[in-house]
Amino acid sequence: MNQLLLSTDQIDKNGKVKITGNPLEHIRKILKLGLGETIRIGIVNGSMGIAHICSVSDKDFIEIEIDTNTLKPPPKPPNCKVVMALPRPKMMRRVFQNLSSLGIKEIHSIHSWRVEKSFWQTPWLKPEIIEQQLVLGLEQSMDTIIPSVSIHKLFKPFAEDQLPEILDDTLALVAHPYTEQKCPIDIRDQASTLIIGPEGGFTEYEIEKIVEAGAQSVSIGPRILRVETAVPVLISRLYPS
Amino acid sequence: MNQLLLSTDQIDKNGKVKITGNPLEHIRKILKLGLGETIRIGIVNGSMGIAHICSVSDKDFIEIEIDTNTLKPPPKPPNCKVVMALPRPKMMRRVFQNLSSLGIKEIHSIHSWRVEKSFWQTPWLKPEIIEQQLVLGLEQSMDTIIPSVSIHKLFKPFAEDQLPEILDDTLALVAHPYTEQKCPIDIRDQASTLIIGPEGGFTEYEIEKIVEAGAQSVSIGPRILRVETAVPVLISRLYPS
Repeated sequence: MNQLLLSTDQIDKNGKVKITGNPLEHIRKILKLGLGETIRIGIVNGSMGIAHICSVSDKDFIEIEIDTNTLKPPPKPPNCKVVMALPRPKMMRRVFQNLSSLGIKEIHSIHSWRVEKSFWQTPWLKPEIIEQQLVLGLEQSMDTIIPSVSIHKLFKPFAEDQLPEILDDTLALVAHPYTEQKCPIDIRDQASTLIIGPEGGFTEYEIEKIVEAGAQSVSIGPRILRVETAVPVLISRLYPS
Repeated sequence: MNQLLLSTDQIDKNGKVKITGNPLEHIRKILKLGLGETIRIGIVNGSMGIAHICSVSDKDFIEIEIDTNTLKPPPKPPNCKVVMALPRPKMMRRVFQNLSSLGIKEIHSIHSWRVEKSFWQTPWLKPEIIEQQLVLGLEQSMDTIIPSVSIHKLFKPFAEDQLPEILDDTLALVAHPYTEQKCPIDIRDQASTLIIGPEGGFTEYEIEKIVEAGAQSVSIGPRILRVETAVPVLISRLYPS
């Protein structure tokens, strides 16, 4: 955690916040901060800056006071939506954390033939658990804007009815290992949508439907990467900040 | 696993290989392949191609025959060495897998002030376990060349005595969040060395020593990424393949 993310309802009218629970543990045991020391904070969907530890109780809480002079806006996100096949449960939390830390603000998690049906049963898909991961990603990377995550359990209606609208007015790219066309590099502020398949890739039928919806199939080289590695590779290539 | 990696001593003089143990499980249960079907194979530090399943026993093994007509060299690696602070044990296996899957062939794992001493005690640092991870990375990305991994448990002698030689004749970059200088983009075939700090970053003293050894400090933007995310971001930015 490089920054503590606070919701506005935690902040009292004097800009003070009582810290309890896990964040308190983290400040005490990992950051080892005490009275008078400072901590980086962000306000959910708002600005970010510095707070001072202004009061310390023996056990239950510490209190911090936001230094409003230090507040500044969060970093500009890459102009990029991500549509990805649901990762396997073991990877799910990490993938959501990574996408959030990379600054992606619109995520669609979709079904695909190679996504096992059982993956949809995992508790890691509960909205409050996804949000925890998104917050961890923001606290890691120092950002405040929580991404939106949409879940689409049926491939065909998603590809036919919703995908064309998502792709509209964006450079829409589907990563596919066996394509000649190379993925572009450094597209600056151009809006894009990245579509990322499951382990083993999309089927040919799925690629066809995605291309029909308006995407072009592109390669990122001869190596086949795991989703968790392919996502930062693609975003860094399109938006080297 | 997108490709089964075989050592030369597994291959008999007719190009046949008996498959047992974990790879057999994987072929049966995940890939669900039977007699006559094909599997992608690579030969450790050699070429890669297709093999046919030519014999199936009830329980203990299957036999595959390499189709020598399909053999071709592995993909060209990015011309890049990686020097990184030892990741925390929980991340270690994944980081070695990722580096291997990205095609890095020379890895140095080093101590740094923010690497906890206890990290060096982990069983995941045993050479045979590191090699397992490197092989998994190659099997994922379809490559055959096993990276070299060197372990350096003392920062100062490493930075003073060995680092200058490692950096020699390469574009040497140390990722550091609070630097103005941006990391270059698309350096083509130019040789580079990437130096990556621990969670929390190198100390100022360490950055000084690394710069003295010949590296320049560069930024990859305002977001602070975990090592596992920063590595693919940096490699993709320097060598978009």
